[in-house]
Amino acid sequence: MDCPVPKNDYDKILLAHGGGGTLMHRLIDDIFKSNFDNEILSQGNDSAIFEISGTKFAFTTDSYVVQPLFFPGGDIGTLAVNGTVNDLCVSGAKPLYISVGFIIEEGFPIEELEKIVISMKKSAEEAKIKIVTGDTKVINKKSGDGIYINTSGIGIVYDEVNISAGNLKPGDKIILSGKIADHGIAVMSARENLEFETEIKSDCAALNGLVDEIFSVSKNIKVMRDPTRGGVAGTLNEIAKSSGLGIKIYEDKIPVSEPVRGACEILGFDPMYVANEGKLIAFVKSKDAEKVLLKMQSHHLGKESVIIGEVTSENPARVIMKTVIGSSRIVDMISGEQLPRIC
Amino acid sequence: MDCPVPKNDYDKILLAHGGGGTLMHRLIDDIFKSNFDNEILSQGNDSAIFEISGTKFAFTTDSYVVQPLFFPGGDIGTLAVNGTVNDLCVSGAKPLYISVGFIIEEGFPIEELEKIVISMKKSAEEAKIKIVTGDTKVINKKSGDGIYINTSGIGIVYDEVNISAGNLKPGDKIILSGKIADHGIAVMSARENLEFETEIKSDCAALNGLVDEIFSVSKNIKVMRDPTRGGVAGTLNEIAKSSGLGIKIYEDKIPVSEPVRGACEILGFDPMYVANEGKLIAFVKSKDAEKVLLKMQSHHLGKESVIIGEVTSENPARVIMKTVIGSSRIVDMISGEQLPRIC
Repeated sequence: MDCPVPKNDYDKILLAHGGGGTLMHRLIDDIFKSNFDNEILSQGNDSAIFEISGTKFAFTTDSYVVQPLFFPGGDIGTLAVNGTVNDLCVSGAKPLYISVGFIIEEGFPIEELEKIVISMKKSAEEAKIKIVTGDTKVINKKSGDGIYINTSGIGIVYDEVNISAGNLKPGDKIILSGKIADHGIAVMSARENLEFETEIKSDCAALNGLVDEIFSVSKNIKVMRDPTRGGVAGTLNEIAKSSGLGIKIYEDKIPVSEPVRGACEILGFDPMYVANEGKLIAFVKSKDAEKVLLKMQSHHLGKESVIIGEVTSENPARVIMKTVIGSSRIVDMISGEQLPRIC
Repeated sequence: MDCPVPKNDYDKILLAHGGGGTLMHRLIDDIFKSNFDNEILSQGNDSAIFEISGTKFAFTTDSYVVQPLFFPGGDIGTLAVNGTVNDLCVSGAKPLYISVGFIIEEGFPIEELEKIVISMKKSAEEAKIKIVTGDTKVINKKSGDGIYINTSGIGIVYDEVNISAGNLKPGDKIILSGKIADHGIAVMSARENLEFETEIKSDCAALNGLVDEIFSVSKNIKVMRDPTRGGVAGTLNEIAKSSGLGIKIYEDKIPVSEPVRGACEILGFDPMYVANEGKLIAFVKSKDAEKVLLKMQSHHLGKESVIIGEVTSENPARVIMKTVIGSSRIVDMISGEQLPRIC
């Protein structure tokens, strides 16, 4: 049973309020949704979807506060572009334009700023989107951690595409585009100066090319998400809760690389809760699942795509994992985040 | 003569890089524009303007880092909504939707967060726009100053309206919508705990209603701007530089309230460089200037509107002020900002 915690059980913001778990969702519901209430916001998607003169748009925003700013496989700049591109494309939209707002700490080296800007430029080129407007604010020394970046993005929703947890039906298949937990472990290893036998790199990438491919073979995609904060477990829980249906996944199908599995064991993390920045979860109508899977596997970002489970009528609003030893366990949403400041 | 300073004369970010003066413009040109270069960004307006399926859109972003968070006449929440609404409407667009990205410091009181959110809700209602999507990040204690807010906004450009410094012609009149420097002085007095005989309140307000009225009587508005960072002097200099024409203004026409004038004298500030958050500068074709002025004066935010000067062919790219004693002086852009963290 869910035990709703009273609104005022915390009077101060905790790090966990930013972690993609139950605490963050409660903050959003209690403070933001209840005040800003309108029919577009209440859709509760990664992007707002609205129609203007017959065209359906997606609009999204994300701030990036990752520490450290540079990590194996990327930096705050690659994250800031790809993260917002991904929020748009998993909403069923073709990303077009993004804005960038820099908040820079006094004393930040201009050389590092330029490195970050060049990463953003390259990521924008790869994702085939344009950075069209920006803003720069400078804050006093010790009022920041070098640099924070906000990007907001606009895209056009694909024709005949309707992404919504409300569309889900028992039997829909769940496809995951590859190995999980690389991003979180890469950032963590950079933060703590950990060295593993094999360097673990962030999977940070723009998913709009892969999404384009998916829509070229099927419009029967019910829900798509990029499992960032809160990891695959957090994302699946959000979807189970908003659809009211159950989700069954198979432990032996969840792809985790050996180095990441090892690092998670050493650090005491469950890879299911660790952030990804270049992975896609697609909920597909059963009859189209095989076709979509093959198409995903033909794309360089989806080579290791696999069906990890399905939607069920049993266990409403719950995520259940069939373990390798054959038992079932509930995969719950955690309250905060194992790894803060991961994006 | 302009003396271009070499790119690498600073190797670290200074507070002045965020001040709306020459240093900020150099940073934008050297690092941002040169890397993100595209035809939309290079328009160099407050908002990006682009066309999608026959409709012209404006898209803008701004981060708010004001200190203190609460000040007479407003708070960071009212600023965050009105500032972005104003960037859209001075670009000739009707603001529709905005996003909000919160970066909150661990330990920030939830009560204060809710006060800010309620200010945003009220400002959005007054401006008749919707907050449709958001993001929340939490940063560690001492990695922030309580809260930073980014808002990005989308609007639709009015038919037959074309706002661009390139449209200016000698003889165009310059209308200012009211008294200047209230916002900067209100924030400064709150920051320094200064008490003046009369409380000085920020002029923070959404200008889209006033802009609506202006367009109802004339589409011959060449340029509009809200003189925030860098003040009226900074804004006029930007316009003079991008148009390549001269700007002549009359000191005795510039409206400043007595309390603000007194505070500026005590603090050693020139009100021409102090930020405003609810004022409009409109460059209007001479034949329509009287009509636009009257319409502005009939709106509650434009009651004290006044023609402060005109565009000239003399003094290209310069702002010249006719002083009360009859002499002329150059009103230059300053390198940084008299008052950092004002918005």
